Amino acid sequence: MKKSALQQARAAYKPQLPIVLTGGVKVVEGEATQSADNQEDIKNLFPNTYGLPEIRFEKVPAEESVEPINVGVILSGGQAPGGHNVISGLFDGIKNLNKKSRLYGFLMGPGGLVDHKYKELTAEIIDEYRNTGGFDIIGSGRTKLETKEQFDKGLEILKELDIKALVIIGGDDSNTNAAILAEYYKAIGAGVQVIGVPKTIDGDLKNNVIETSFGFDTATKVYSEVIGNIQRDCNSAKKYWHFIKLMGRSASHIALECALQCQPNVCIISEEVETKNLTLDQVVDDIADAVVARAKDGNNYGVVLIPEGLIEFIPAVKALISELNDLLAVKAEEFAAIDPEKQREWVLGQLSEANAKTYESLPAGVARQLTLDRDPHGNVQVSLIETEKLLSEMVGKRLEQLAAEGKYNGKYATMHHFFGYEGRCADPSNFDANYCYALGYTAACLIAAGKTGYMSSLRNLTFAPVNWIAGGIPITMMMNMERRHGEMKPVIRKALVELDGAPFLKFAKERNTWKYNTCYTYPGPIQYFGPSEVCDLPSLTLVYEQKRRRY
Amino acid sequence: MKKSALQQARAAYKPQLPIVLTGGVKVVEGEATQSADNQEDIKNLFPNTYGLPEIRFEKVPAEESVEPINVGVILSGGQAPGGHNVISGLFDGIKNLNKKSRLYGFLMGPGGLVDHKYKELTAEIIDEYRNTGGFDIIGSGRTKLETKEQFDKGLEILKELDIKALVIIGGDDSNTNAAILAEYYKAIGAGVQVIGVPKTIDGDLKNNVIETSFGFDTATKVYSEVIGNIQRDCNSAKKYWHFIKLMGRSASHIALECALQCQPNVCIISEEVETKNLTLDQVVDDIADAVVARAKDGNNYGVVLIPEGLIEFIPAVKALISELNDLLAVKAEEFAAIDPEKQREWVLGQLSEANAKTYESLPAGVARQLTLDRDPHGNVQVSLIETEKLLSEMVGKRLEQLAAEGKYNGKYATMHHFFGYEGRCADPSNFDANYCYALGYTAACLIAAGKTGYMSSLRNLTFAPVNWIAGGIPITMMMNMERRHGEMKPVIRKALVELDGAPFLKFAKERNTWKYNTCYTYPGPIQYFGPSEVCDLPSLTLVYEQKRRRY
Repeated sequence: MKKSALQQARAAYKPQLPIVLTGGVKVVEGEATQSADNQEDIKNLFPNTYGLPEIRFEKVPAEESVEPINVGVILSGGQAPGGHNVISGLFDGIKNLNKKSRLYGFLMGPGGLVDHKYKELTAEIIDEYRNTGGFDIIGSGRTKLETKEQFDKGLEILKELDIKALVIIGGDDSNTNAAILAEYYKAIGAGVQVIGVPKTIDGDLKNNVIETSFGFDTATKVYSEVIGNIQRDCNSAKKYWHFIKLMGRSASHIALECALQCQPNVCIISEEVETKNLTLDQVVDDIADAVVARAKDGNNYGVVLIPEGLIEFIPAVKALISELNDLLAVKAEEFAAIDPEKQREWVLGQLSEANAKTYESLPAGVARQLTLDRDPHGNVQVSLIETEKLLSEMVGKRLEQLAAEGKYNGKYATMHHFFGYEGRCADPSNFDANYCYALGYTAACLIAAGKTGYMSSLRNLTFAPVNWIAGGIPITMMMNMERRHGEMKPVIRKALVELDGAPFLKFAKERNTWKYNTCYTYPGPIQYFGPSEVCDLPSLTLVYEQKRRRY
Repeated sequence: MKKSALQQARAAYKPQLPIVLTGGVKVVEGEATQSADNQEDIKNLFPNTYGLPEIRFEKVPAEESVEPINVGVILSGGQAPGGHNVISGLFDGIKNLNKKSRLYGFLMGPGGLVDHKYKELTAEIIDEYRNTGGFDIIGSGRTKLETKEQFDKGLEILKELDIKALVIIGGDDSNTNAAILAEYYKAIGAGVQVIGVPKTIDGDLKNNVIETSFGFDTATKVYSEVIGNIQRDCNSAKKYWHFIKLMGRSASHIALECALQCQPNVCIISEEVETKNLTLDQVVDDIADAVVARAKDGNNYGVVLIPEGLIEFIPAVKALISELNDLLAVKAEEFAAIDPEKQREWVLGQLSEANAKTYESLPAGVARQLTLDRDPHGNVQVSLIETEKLLSEMVGKRLEQLAAEGKYNGKYATMHHFFGYEGRCADPSNFDANYCYALGYTAACLIAAGKTGYMSSLRNLTFAPVNWIAGGIPITMMMNMERRHGEMKPVIRKALVELDGAPFLKFAKERNTWKYNTCYTYPGPIQYFGPSEVCDLPSLTLVYEQKRRRY
């Protein structure tokens, strides 16, 4: 692998460990915990791992060497900056326990455990990946560990390699499955502990005990860099409206953080759209309002941020998609036999009145996409819908009406962008590099302490890393029961943007100023070597959330 | 303007001046020069400014204060990182001559001169914009300064403000117009000097006396950052082929530089396609070959870089577009009256056999775009064609054929990106910050030396800035006659990628290794504060070109 100059310089970076992890540790147990909701159900489903105490580590003099321990690690789901540092922290943690400890990485995600595909991660390999982005050290994958067969198959290879603990680095689903696996292995006396690590750039795996998931900080900084650059271009050329879609299907944390960083003219927050039961037309009107008002000041340009999942949060569109899914599942053959030119008419005739009205309001291309591009289960592939173009086109139509009514006479030219893959594998920011390394190191401490069903935890993250509090949170503590594919399942509750949360309130307070004026901020690229106020600041979302928590 | 932490830290950066500019300067004149070609024509068109010598500045003890001088500055054309530093260098340069000198910025491009829209750039304003990206200090625009009426109108305001020299920061066209304006003002004895500054992220304004245009370095670093991040994602998830289109319509320097930085699997170079007279099918086959070969190794992923202007370089497509432009200009009404469903058939019936064949080979959506989306002159809007999707779709079709023949059984899923606006207004890299500041400062020296029709010049750019050679190049020296809109015009010759140039040869030597293997390099974001080997390296294009030149 040919390394860039930055990679070479960055390889030498030593993540800052919390002071509590710099010697030996002792476990301090808190009170027994309860699940987030549905306590009886969760307790019944996790008889062996429910109600465990939160734990926190305290520093003690370094212990005598303990027995060597073999550990397995899995990267699950979408990439997030810092995964390699979780693994290197874990590696250093178990080597610190005993130099003969070994780390095995299962390849291409949870599937590697089931299919017995793995490699030993030696010091030589680990050193190649310190402080780098990507999950390429062992790859990642989306296989879900859910069935007893998978658990048993996995146990075969764990036994063969004498692995005593498995660390699963993943999002809410993967950590839910980690908890189920921990429970199962405990129940059958398999002798394998399972520890989770909170990963996702989407920022939706957090709660009152997990301050943030790793990767969110770096990914949003990369998006903010390019959004800022586009804003500066926008403000120099003064001739385009840029519609920028951002990754994040389930929650709008990414869009919100980028809005706080960059101060664009408009940022749609899906959770607000849903809560206020807004129609697509209302969202369009909101943007058109900005275009019209700015045009009056001679400013025929602007920037609009759109969360990827928006369309699924608009109640009317959600209802339409749901009816379409049912309709086209039942009448798939009939639909397929219809002349493509007549499909639109046919669909309109089949839909309920309300949904037909929504369908009719959509641009032809998008409407067509809703009926044609379907996944193997027959469902609409929402992620393929180009929401940024849908909105800009509908805003254009609205402006035509307003122009006809004499209420608008500006120019409206648009550009479209979608940012996602640009940020998932960036080199981790100092924050994520430190946070991830500490998460991995803490996982090693949890393993040494014999814990299972815990998530590695660092708190006080807005302080310098030396002051971070390290410990473990029982995963069951974050769970509740939710309906998934028609069945009630125990899951970690997803963190959506809270409309009474500090980050949203800050945004809500400022957004009208940003909308009509030009208040762009230009964060620039992530810096690794400069002054601390440039290199080490965590996300504004985290800062605002934690500030509030402390008062 | 709320400043980001990076902006605040970056505001304190002091660009490094060439040592020759740190005191007073004396002019050293070289030999009289000749235009690049068509010497007689150019000489006749530029009787007053043809054949001037190249000049170079040498350091002398700082002079007694000279008379204050008023200078105007214009940003012309697309944004490029560093424009603000050209202006701050110019400001500091004329203030160094005499503190009472004044700088006026004409607003929103050359149109500001004609329309008498300007503002004085005071120290307070300048200080807000040092080392920042964007052209927002005075805005830019694409009005072309071409007519006597414009020149005379401009002269009115120049006289009114007592401006003795005008600095035009722009690309090849803008500098051509700067030369014409210089000649005109000289011819009529207007008493206004005109100095050009070479700007364009495209990198196509360079020659044996201008080593590079400013902005190319920063923009390609931003694109390389995000391409590298996507490559790392690609190499972690191992399930997508990413098709990445990059700005650069006339030349492929940007794509080539990004390829040298990132080592993707495929990078198309338009100039090669044209020189080798490749068909669209051959380009598609080249990519399909990479997909098939990598699939055999189990690698169903990869990255393809595509220059924005590719489609215009494919001789067959160029011929098709040309015939379509003529056809639809002549038969516009007839075409418009045709049922949209039958337009394709009608077009096929009208085209010559060869062009009909090309038209038929295009995906339906692209073919439709060629006939429908036309500019006010009736021409195809090539920039709207989504070349990245066109190619990925055609590769998909080719793979289906190969699969049917039993020659391919991989998976082929694609993602598309277009990077352009992300890089044009980034904060300038240290290289561009230094280069631009020196270009502006040198322009001030050229003004003080009474020169007109010159381009500000820095050479030896791969050395440390202190060693750069500062001077001026007569713009006529870079000119030749070319046909534009049916007329022979004097223009600066555009620098295309040379297939026998060092950067392309380096790429050509390595590309098969990159194609079949995974040799991705991850440059990461631009760094401003770290070790010199991370922060100060110029583009590889410049390094390879200059290395060759010195041997």
